[in-house]
Amino acid sequence: MSGSSIGKIFKLTTWGESHGDSIGCVLDGVPSGIKINESEIQKFLNKRKPGQSKFTTQRKEPDIVKILSGTFNDTTTGTPVSMIIKNVDKKSKDYSDIKDAFRPGHADYTYQEKFGIRDFRGGGRASARETAMRVAGGVLARKILGKKVQIRGALVQIGNKKINYKNWNWNEVDKNDFFCPDKESVSIWKKYLEGIRKKGSSIGALIEIHVSGVPVGLGEPIFDKIDALIAHAIMSIPAVKGIEIGRGFDSAILSGEENADEIYSKGKRVFFKTNNSGGTLGGITSGQNLIIRFAVKPTSSILNSRETINIEKKNTSIITKGRHDPCVGIRAVPVGEAMLAIVLADNFLINKVRKNL
Amino acid sequence: MSGSSIGKIFKLTTWGESHGDSIGCVLDGVPSGIKINESEIQKFLNKRKPGQSKFTTQRKEPDIVKILSGTFNDTTTGTPVSMIIKNVDKKSKDYSDIKDAFRPGHADYTYQEKFGIRDFRGGGRASARETAMRVAGGVLARKILGKKVQIRGALVQIGNKKINYKNWNWNEVDKNDFFCPDKESVSIWKKYLEGIRKKGSSIGALIEIHVSGVPVGLGEPIFDKIDALIAHAIMSIPAVKGIEIGRGFDSAILSGEENADEIYSKGKRVFFKTNNSGGTLGGITSGQNLIIRFAVKPTSSILNSRETINIEKKNTSIITKGRHDPCVGIRAVPVGEAMLAIVLADNFLINKVRKNL
Amino acid sequence: MSGSSIGKIFKLTTWGESHGDSIGCVLDGVPSGIKINESEIQKFLNKRKPGQSKFTTQRKEPDIVKILSGTFNDTTTGTPVSMIIKNVDKKSKDYSDIKDAFRPGHADYTYQEKFGIRDFRGGGRASARETAMRVAGGVLARKILGKKVQIRGALVQIGNKKINYKNWNWNEVDKNDFFCPDKESVSIWKKYLEGIRKKGSSIGALIEIHVSGVPVGLGEPIFDKIDALIAHAIMSIPAVKGIEIGRGFDSAILSGEENADEIYSKGKRVFFKTNNSGGTLGGITSGQNLIIRFAVKPTSSILNSRETINIEKKNTSIITKGRHDPCVGIRAVPVGEAMLAIVLADNFLINKVRKNL
Amino acid sequence: MSGSSIGKIFKLTTWGESHGDSIGCVLDGVPSGIKINESEIQKFLNKRKPGQSKFTTQRKEPDIVKILSGTFNDTTTGTPVSMIIKNVDKKSKDYSDIKDAFRPGHADYTYQEKFGIRDFRGGGRASARETAMRVAGGVLARKILGKKVQIRGALVQIGNKKINYKNWNWNEVDKNDFFCPDKESVSIWKKYLEGIRKKGSSIGALIEIHVSGVPVGLGEPIFDKIDALIAHAIMSIPAVKGIEIGRGFDSAILSGEENADEIYSKGKRVFFKTNNSGGTLGGITSGQNLIIRFAVKPTSSILNSRETINIEKKNTSIITKGRHDPCVGIRAVPVGEAMLAIVLADNFLINKVRKNL
Repeated sequence: MSGSSIGKIFKLTTWGESHGDSIGCVLDGVPSGIKINESEIQKFLNKRKPGQSKFTTQRKEPDIVKILSGTFNDTTTGTPVSMIIKNVDKKSKDYSDIKDAFRPGHADYTYQEKFGIRDFRGGGRASARETAMRVAGGVLARKILGKKVQIRGALVQIGNKKINYKNWNWNEVDKNDFFCPDKESVSIWKKYLEGIRKKGSSIGALIEIHVSGVPVGLGEPIFDKIDALIAHAIMSIPAVKGIEIGRGFDSAILSGEENADEIYSKGKRVFFKTNNSGGTLGGITSGQNLIIRFAVKPTSSILNSRETINIEKKNTSIITKGRHDPCVGIRAVPVGEAMLAIVLADNFLINKVRKNL
Repeated sequence: MSGSSIGKIFKLTTWGESHGDSIGCVLDGVPSGIKINESEIQKFLNKRKPGQSKFTTQRKEPDIVKILSGTFNDTTTGTPVSMIIKNVDKKSKDYSDIKDAFRPGHADYTYQEKFGIRDFRGGGRASARETAMRVAGGVLARKILGKKVQIRGALVQIGNKKINYKNWNWNEVDKNDFFCPDKESVSIWKKYLEGIRKKGSSIGALIEIHVSGVPVGLGEPIFDKIDALIAHAIMSIPAVKGIEIGRGFDSAILSGEENADEIYSKGKRVFFKTNNSGGTLGGITSGQNLIIRFAVKPTSSILNSRETINIEKKNTSIITKGRHDPCVGIRAVPVGEAMLAIVLADNFLINKVRKNL
Repeated sequence: MSGSSIGKIFKLTTWGESHGDSIGCVLDGVPSGIKINESEIQKFLNKRKPGQSKFTTQRKEPDIVKILSGTFNDTTTGTPVSMIIKNVDKKSKDYSDIKDAFRPGHADYTYQEKFGIRDFRGGGRASARETAMRVAGGVLARKILGKKVQIRGALVQIGNKKINYKNWNWNEVDKNDFFCPDKESVSIWKKYLEGIRKKGSSIGALIEIHVSGVPVGLGEPIFDKIDALIAHAIMSIPAVKGIEIGRGFDSAILSGEENADEIYSKGKRVFFKTNNSGGTLGGITSGQNLIIRFAVKPTSSILNSRETINIEKKNTSIITKGRHDPCVGIRAVPVGEAMLAIVLADNFLINKVRKNL
Repeated sequence: MSGSSIGKIFKLTTWGESHGDSIGCVLDGVPSGIKINESEIQKFLNKRKPGQSKFTTQRKEPDIVKILSGTFNDTTTGTPVSMIIKNVDKKSKDYSDIKDAFRPGHADYTYQEKFGIRDFRGGGRASARETAMRVAGGVLARKILGKKVQIRGALVQIGNKKINYKNWNWNEVDKNDFFCPDKESVSIWKKYLEGIRKKGSSIGALIEIHVSGVPVGLGEPIFDKIDALIAHAIMSIPAVKGIEIGRGFDSAILSGEENADEIYSKGKRVFFKTNNSGGTLGGITSGQNLIIRFAVKPTSSILNSRETINIEKKNTSIITKGRHDPCVGIRAVPVGEAMLAIVLADNFLINKVRKNL
């Protein structure tokens, strides 16, 4: 109820601060009988892990996950699955200068006002560090969904550098430092980001996630339309400022004829001629691919001086010297995939009991 | 849990189908001692009511609301507030042709697949008719927030016809049929929409909602960031396909320097030089105006023949002859305002107990 | 969140005051495809209905239920089922004397303190009148559970008059005014209650509910053990002051050898030699019959003068002249059955998704 | 939703198995600004800790709690408080004989049936070991309630040995191994329990908890009456089979005159002549002391052979040789106190937003 949990049947609760002892999560409602081990989770965590290239934060975190409960002989037992990751590289001294001043664009001011106290070390709870546990939770979510459901994300734009959609190749995504599906964009982005990094600046990005193999029927109108739940989950990722499904904002300029996807069948199989809807009708998955796009703002941690106020509400200025991502959008790709998995897994379970059999 | 409720402390549950006996809602968690009467709620309902101009559906619904419980001498008592609106103009025969065939772009197919049965009369539960109860709930939400918090929406684009932002005038909004803040756009839109209506077609739209007077501190990280809750609420409105906050999707092309809003103070009052964030930092309201934009797709009810399948999954075609909105985006303005009010009121109450005093 | 809902997947929300326009409920999470009509619900409501004999309140309420949404052709569609009962016999004048004074043993004082306002007419929301909607909800719950699950309650004690357990006969229960399973006790109770009624007094009672055909596996440890959920549901019934399961309070005097029910099998069928547990082990149903007992205090509405205070906290005295039950425990029998049904139906649905298949 | 959480605003989620790596909890919704440190929590944990006398299990667990998140400089920050206790003395070999056979009276059979897999080591999740985290959570709950609210429990009966209520002295409770408030009963119980322990048997018990200083107004009718929430919380404690409030089951034999507590005032202070209600009216705290009593069944782990079945549903017999409590009721005293604290703290926070100020 106070914001650290998401999901209804399959519920993820996370805890932990950027520079505290550790971060962790509890997954309740995991069905029993799912085969899972730490190395499977580790594989996904490694995709999000900091310090992998010069285009992400230089903090060195091995991010080794440990399962503390809820499994027996590498199988879930139906009891809560607790996972933990130790914080290793916590150079707290890096952050001493932000103790009393609020970094513009960060959560420093609002946390201080809301709670009257804040753990200023590395952003505390507001740090994107917590997203590691979302990725961990996403792995179990994928297991619930089964192998037919494929959730794949890609970075499609950095600053004003958009990919060429014609070059889209899922096989490229894991071969570069950007989760970029367009081989040609990789070198352009490298050069571009290198420039931004050297200036001590940062830049925004666009991410696209596709889900194939989605069963028809997921989503609970009226308020828990699958679109609403996805928007909720994605907008809860740090730095996300917009989300759209299918044609999204473009829908504003479409006519009814252009927009509504016509339906046809071959035998008992149902097809759609187009996918403007992005895979949902009336808030319920239609069986088409889910197509989600979201925008990530540039990190507000930059090496240039910015005007701000301090804890006594006096005017001052600040330079954020910590180790940061020139483009946080990159690491948002595996996080976005995980959030989609979590929403879909929960609704997959809910949907099992919506029809009287 | 099955989708008909929204909110935690202040919780709205709605029920009812487009052509059933009535529609209604239950508001639980309403604090006691709030002055409220039916005519105050009616005033807001009338803004959303169908049949007000030729640019909205010609269904004639007086939409008279009745409060059935939870108040005593026009004051809330702390017990659940139940409200009801009778469905009056339910020409069920209009819909006989859609009994067995699925209208493309509508929820017909997904409801049938999910539930194995559907109330096909006028879209049943999937009809935007249910949004009347969101508007009713929004009125009580506004009361909780108090008069300082002003929630105002406007239509800023129909199809490719965008308003001129320089002409923005809130006083214009209630003077035309479109909630348009730009006097000059009104006649353009009139002509444009008239053309669409005559063709039996429909068109999408963009809506913008501004909230002023927002207290600092609303929103519950990590998963219930105010951004996430707003996205959830707005994306649950029928036909909404995208939502952004502040600079939204534009954030992708901004640098950290361009994006982060600098802070300064005069005395103890805190100001921001810009409002790229749209009023939230780290998922918590910053005290700046909330700026929300969302896209509404065109109604899929159009007078042109479309290919589809029937309940036996045979190929067929359909023309939707019912009475519909050429631009549903118009009536989404008061609904969007209501959803914002509901999210903010709930979080206003939650935030009261997050600090130990 | 504010107390008017119960259940997770199958969720009942009730609203309405004793002497308001009407009372009602919304059932969300009802699976689609359940055959139901108003007359089936009416049958159960009639068991609880006031004014049936001189041993229950003389208020004349036909308690005619109407389904407003969620069904189509007498079948649930998966959307919220809304039901309403008009309040007909609301002699508000009967209650004018309690407007300013607090009836001892009633909720008058606490509602006034909690909310600063109260609907004093007939107890308002605190009246047992709301239990009609629990009974209505219970009917749909029974449908979810199916016919194999039989939920039956009986009154086993009024004041110090206990039934003779050896005479227990379920067929007797519906043949008398007390839901008494012991034919011999009926005439004793009649005479006894007649005396209490004539004195303008009231008396407490004990109720026992048995559920047979319960599937193994219902209940969600740790906090939502089936015992805990049952206790919650039963203790939420007005006037209930104690609840026990199986041997209940007697367990305190038992040794481990006397208490633990030994298990044996015949083929693949599992049996227990005794049922001290009352049908639950570790908070999960064991497949044995559920045995629940709960105590109902005497109505605090009595014709004898009692000392109390008024709304200005001045000392005064009061006689409650309204129409009341000499033994509210009687009408608590169908209500207790309904609450059991609601808890079990919800957990029946939840349990369907706890194992990975 | 799947049972590992309790509370709405102040929410406790626990995880961990008896013989896994560790046990732990996450407390979400803790207001910021509460002073807390590990040693304060440890103090309460030590009361519940096993191995303290020969009358509780001989398992040697130091039960050292560590706070992993949610505090900064020994003050809560409003973010989730995560706590962990390592399992140290996990003699898994002790439990090898129960791997395939179900101990009568234990959760072995029902967990196996529900989940198809179970962690048989020491009862796994069903072990009372998890109650340590309830005690830990209870300490923060007490902080929220403040020092005026005093929650104290005592053991009032072991087997058929009841205390003499006339000797009740709260100062005695912490001076003996039984939380016994009656000095005279201590030696009687010692001898009695010694006999039971030597026989390898076990015995049930009765616990009473008193809460003074309770504010008026806690509890959310209809379904979340404080009585219902307390019953839920207490019945979720392992081995509890009955709960009553105030006169409880005795209410069945009382008349309205005997039962309803008369009210009077002195100045603006309100008093009740008696406390039959146990501190609640209409499901809301009245400001009187809360009086709760609950029954704990005897441990089913006994050294005498019992008939049962094995995992293949074949008949067999079992002796439970592990280290166990001859009377688990003793250690249920601090656990019961903690559960009361958790329920009251949550409702204390909720009640703050139920009146419009």
